[in-house]
Amino acid sequence: TSNFCCRKQTVPCCCKRIHSDAKLKDPFTLAQKDLNHLYDDIKKELFVSKSELKSLCDYYFDGKGKAFRPMIVVLMARACNIHSNRDGDLLPGQRSIAMISEMIHTASLVHDDVIDGSDKRRGKTTINEVWGERKAILAGDFILSAASMALARIGNNTVVSVLSQVIEDLVRGEFMQLGSKENESERFKHYLEKSFKKTASLIANSCKAVSILVNSDPEVQEIAFQYGRNVGIAFQLVDDVLDFTACASQLGKPSATDLKLGLATGPVLFACQQFPELHAMIMRRFSTTGDVDRAWQYVLESDGVDQTNYLAQSYCREAIRQISLLRPSPERDALIRLTEMVLTRDK
Amino acid sequence: TSNFCCRKQTVPCCCKRIHSDAKLKDPFTLAQKDLNHLYDDIKKELFVSKSELKSLCDYYFDGKGKAFRPMIVVLMARACNIHSNRDGDLLPGQRSIAMISEMIHTASLVHDDVIDGSDKRRGKTTINEVWGERKAILAGDFILSAASMALARIGNNTVVSVLSQVIEDLVRGEFMQLGSKENESERFKHYLEKSFKKTASLIANSCKAVSILVNSDPEVQEIAFQYGRNVGIAFQLVDDVLDFTACASQLGKPSATDLKLGLATGPVLFACQQFPELHAMIMRRFSTTGDVDRAWQYVLESDGVDQTNYLAQSYCREAIRQISLLRPSPERDALIRLTEMVLTRDK
Repeated sequence: TSNFCCRKQTVPCCCKRIHSDAKLKDPFTLAQKDLNHLYDDIKKELFVSKSELKSLCDYYFDGKGKAFRPMIVVLMARACNIHSNRDGDLLPGQRSIAMISEMIHTASLVHDDVIDGSDKRRGKTTINEVWGERKAILAGDFILSAASMALARIGNNTVVSVLSQVIEDLVRGEFMQLGSKENESERFKHYLEKSFKKTASLIANSCKAVSILVNSDPEVQEIAFQYGRNVGIAFQLVDDVLDFTACASQLGKPSATDLKLGLATGPVLFACQQFPELHAMIMRRFSTTGDVDRAWQYVLESDGVDQTNYLAQSYCREAIRQISLLRPSPERDALIRLTEMVLTRDK
Repeated sequence: TSNFCCRKQTVPCCCKRIHSDAKLKDPFTLAQKDLNHLYDDIKKELFVSKSELKSLCDYYFDGKGKAFRPMIVVLMARACNIHSNRDGDLLPGQRSIAMISEMIHTASLVHDDVIDGSDKRRGKTTINEVWGERKAILAGDFILSAASMALARIGNNTVVSVLSQVIEDLVRGEFMQLGSKENESERFKHYLEKSFKKTASLIANSCKAVSILVNSDPEVQEIAFQYGRNVGIAFQLVDDVLDFTACASQLGKPSATDLKLGLATGPVLFACQQFPELHAMIMRRFSTTGDVDRAWQYVLESDGVDQTNYLAQSYCREAIRQISLLRPSPERDALIRLTEMVLTRDK
């Protein structure tokens, strides 16, 4: 099975060449020096004295997150710096963007959990479940406002615009998710657009922002953006697969969450091409008793999971093509390696 | 009753001199030319194509609001411009700040209504009541992100910091309102601090922001801020009085709303000095059956309403003292006149 990924799905691996290239550094190891104290710095940024608000803010910035977004951001920053004939060392604004990306991400999770009525996140009880919806709404607003202030202090207006766009995209993506009675032909386009807005925009625009601080060349900025966009969409596609394949304890949330929320993601949309019976269930958002279980069965019997994985791989190939346009550096290569980790993660 | 305000309360008027000065222009008339198309411009800023999100955003920006905050902002901008030896005409960034102040205000109302579970606002059914809580949370986030993007486009980092502070203050103020078991001696200080954060910070910092764009002198910026701070706190104090004195149809929301929400505002806190029986009710947030009616009666029998009005007047006097430090202009004088309107409004 050497040309298959280690995932349970029997999908030929698009990144075999990378798999075998032991020289590529582990992204987490390479980013570690820049990410030390990230959560401490975020807490300083939130700047709350002992108060209930502080407890809420500290709750998710507990340093136990993977810091996936900040990791991409610092690697991209170093790769762009080296590409631009500098040493790799982060500019202060680039480190801030790593923090801000995590803050925006966390704020959106807090509001998403209120909106979805979720009681668990990463195996932890959600803020809305512990402190109630009202305080969760406020905590999300507060983290966002702290992110905006940190953003302002970077002192680059283009960077402010680029990252404000992310917040708009997050809202529009969530809104697209709430209403989805569009017709069958537009459904897939709608799904990919939603995936960009809800997940990839933050990664793409954070990558673009760090490139802006070191390089005024629009082509370099576009490479950074496109790498983030493609990795981000692949990340979401794999997330949607894991909702069907990962056991609850691994993902830290119950499986088939999306179906239960009425959402038709990649695996269901592909499955619907084989099993048109799914169409009616998608349209009623799996609201009839038994829909969730029936849809789940159709997905597992179909190629939906494999096809979604294939699609994620094609996004990763494009991400690799883009980032390969930068001058070689350990960080650039770690970003290539990262695409493999996005595809093979199992939680 | 010539030395009493036209309000029902028999409170000596602090601004008699101003009352009789017919030369002072009506602030709304004077600001009108700058506020034409304000709501159209805000809608352009929100930049939403035909969608449900657009309906939500348009709902409160219907042009029927008083645009109280934008009015203060444009008058302050012109007063500062003239003080700084320019013609009064607004700089583009100053007009943007007028818009942004209304956008931040509206976004916070949308989230406040979700948090309070309110079904009416200014006589209109609230967004959470029409579209549900989830979409209301998103609409608030969306308006806030549009405000942040407009702010970034002004291109002045100090202005971005000053107005981001407002969003933080709004959240902290709302948080202070949710938990309030502090001891009796700190209660009044807590109430005034909350009033600053929830209401005055937006006005004060918007005034400061327009002054920053035209004048680098910190003293001028401080005058603008202090005028806004004092008028803002007075505005909130009068609002808290109206919750006891205005009939529901006038205010567009049911009276004694604050008591029903468990909140002890100025009139109750003053009344508690005369009627210590109120203390226990305040501590349990008027949660026992009959508390709201009993507290209401105590307030009406006490001097609580008059004393809150007195306090509002003293804040307005300080606002007048501050703004009078600017060079004379019709707009400066309209800001003086405005303090009277804040005190005498009956809805």
